[in-house]
Amino acid sequence: MSDSQTTLAELRELVRHFVAERDWQQFHNPKNLAMSISIEAAELMEHFQWLTPQQAAQVTGSGAKLAEVGEELADVLCYALALANELNLDVANTVRAKLLKNAIKYPADAFKGRYGANDRGTMER
Amino acid sequence: MSDSQTTLAELRELVRHFVAERDWQQFHNPKNLAMSISIEAAELMEHFQWLTPQQAAQVTGSGAKLAEVGEELADVLCYALALANELNLDVANTVRAKLLKNAIKYPADAFKGRYGANDRGTMER
Amino acid sequence: MSDSQTTLAELRELVRHFVAERDWQQFHNPKNLAMSISIEAAELMEHFQWLTPQQAAQVTGSGAKLAEVGEELADVLCYALALANELNLDVANTVRAKLLKNAIKYPADAFKGRYGANDRGTMER
Amino acid sequence: MSDSQTTLAELRELVRHFVAERDWQQFHNPKNLAMSISIEAAELMEHFQWLTPQQAAQVTGSGAKLAEVGEELADVLCYALALANELNLDVANTVRAKLLKNAIKYPADAFKGRYGANDRGTMER
Repeated sequence: MSDSQTTLAELRELVRHFVAERDWQQFHNPKNLAMSISIEAAELMEHFQWLTPQQAAQVTGSGAKLAEVGEELADVLCYALALANELNLDVANTVRAKLLKNAIKYPADAFKGRYGANDRGTMER
Repeated sequence: MSDSQTTLAELRELVRHFVAERDWQQFHNPKNLAMSISIEAAELMEHFQWLTPQQAAQVTGSGAKLAEVGEELADVLCYALALANELNLDVANTVRAKLLKNAIKYPADAFKGRYGANDRGTMER
Repeated sequence: MSDSQTTLAELRELVRHFVAERDWQQFHNPKNLAMSISIEAAELMEHFQWLTPQQAAQVTGSGAKLAEVGEELADVLCYALALANELNLDVANTVRAKLLKNAIKYPADAFKGRYGANDRGTMER
Repeated sequence: MSDSQTTLAELRELVRHFVAERDWQQFHNPKNLAMSISIEAAELMEHFQWLTPQQAAQVTGSGAKLAEVGEELADVLCYALALANELNLDVANTVRAKLLKNAIKYPADAFKGRYGANDRGTMER
């Protein structure tokens, strides 16, 4: 069941069920979940810590490395979805709204292949 | 179009399109994207920096605060989906595989409402 | 040789020497070092991931736990000092300047035991 | 008063005094401080988010940029020293001990200009 066949709701439910059957919601206040997303994000970064950007881009060519990076990304996403569950936030609508806000801040014609005073290729702020 | 009506593929395509129409893929090597997820995760944490867990849990009751936290979570998710796009990783399958791996590591009956030597309520490691 | 007997310069030199005798400066550009500080900061956070603030405060009472936390803090500091070395930044003067800037932003009489609109007990921003 | 004239104890005392005169210790449990170090580390990373390593290395040549980066590094260090104060950890001894541990793990002759299976130029783990 790939991304084209899985809704956000279905993926959130997998996470919710995993947490609930272990009775772990008691630990899932927003502060702990935000901290957990950061902890996993750092483990993801660690795979690229000393690599040049070119070396980093080669990770798609290595099955083993790609699998490891995929697992760290999955950890980030699991905690992010757990936080969405905890806060009753609709992920699709929240992401759409932020992209719309960013589209106004970074009109495509003005920012095509370039960036503002401080940022390059950032999707927000 | 809420989470029950949006597939992972559709959400990833929104992100891909946003990046492409600004010709920003040139900046989206995995190292920069991993760093970006961390940067946004820290902005999310900032909303809970000095709050007690009880105060943190009250964020669902405040419309304005909840909206701010939602925006930060959207930023984390946008960069995570951008990384999935960059690495051609199927998010649904990657998350499912990780949850299965965690289910073996943390059998529900053995870990119900409790935790291992070091971890409590963690979905991975 | 404790903190009262060690200057910042001496501690920076220990780090510089460690890096130099392994010829590791080639990897120590500011981007990689900033990423490394974040990676270690997350490992430090992991020790408190699911603890309540009260449980977190009890870490001083446990020799083994305190030693583990100390090692993570040392890792953060080593990379921070490595970055100061790389950028030729005087740590003492930089910290003093920032504390002065913060003292103006958060006058003691106005912020005694309380906080601004968003922040509590923060030393900066 | 530069790094060669300032002891770790003196710098820690500056931080302790700043916190105490605002009666902010009540917010400084280790969990919040660990979170704060991470938040500031991410603000430091943000200055290099989209730069190539070469562009990142050029920051020493720009007075304004170097000052900004210095302020972020100062924020990281302030919270790290606040945590050392909170945990009564001697920074110099803790850092020395960790460097000794790393020296055994990464003997200079074996790791000169090279790295282990996964890591390059890392000072720990």
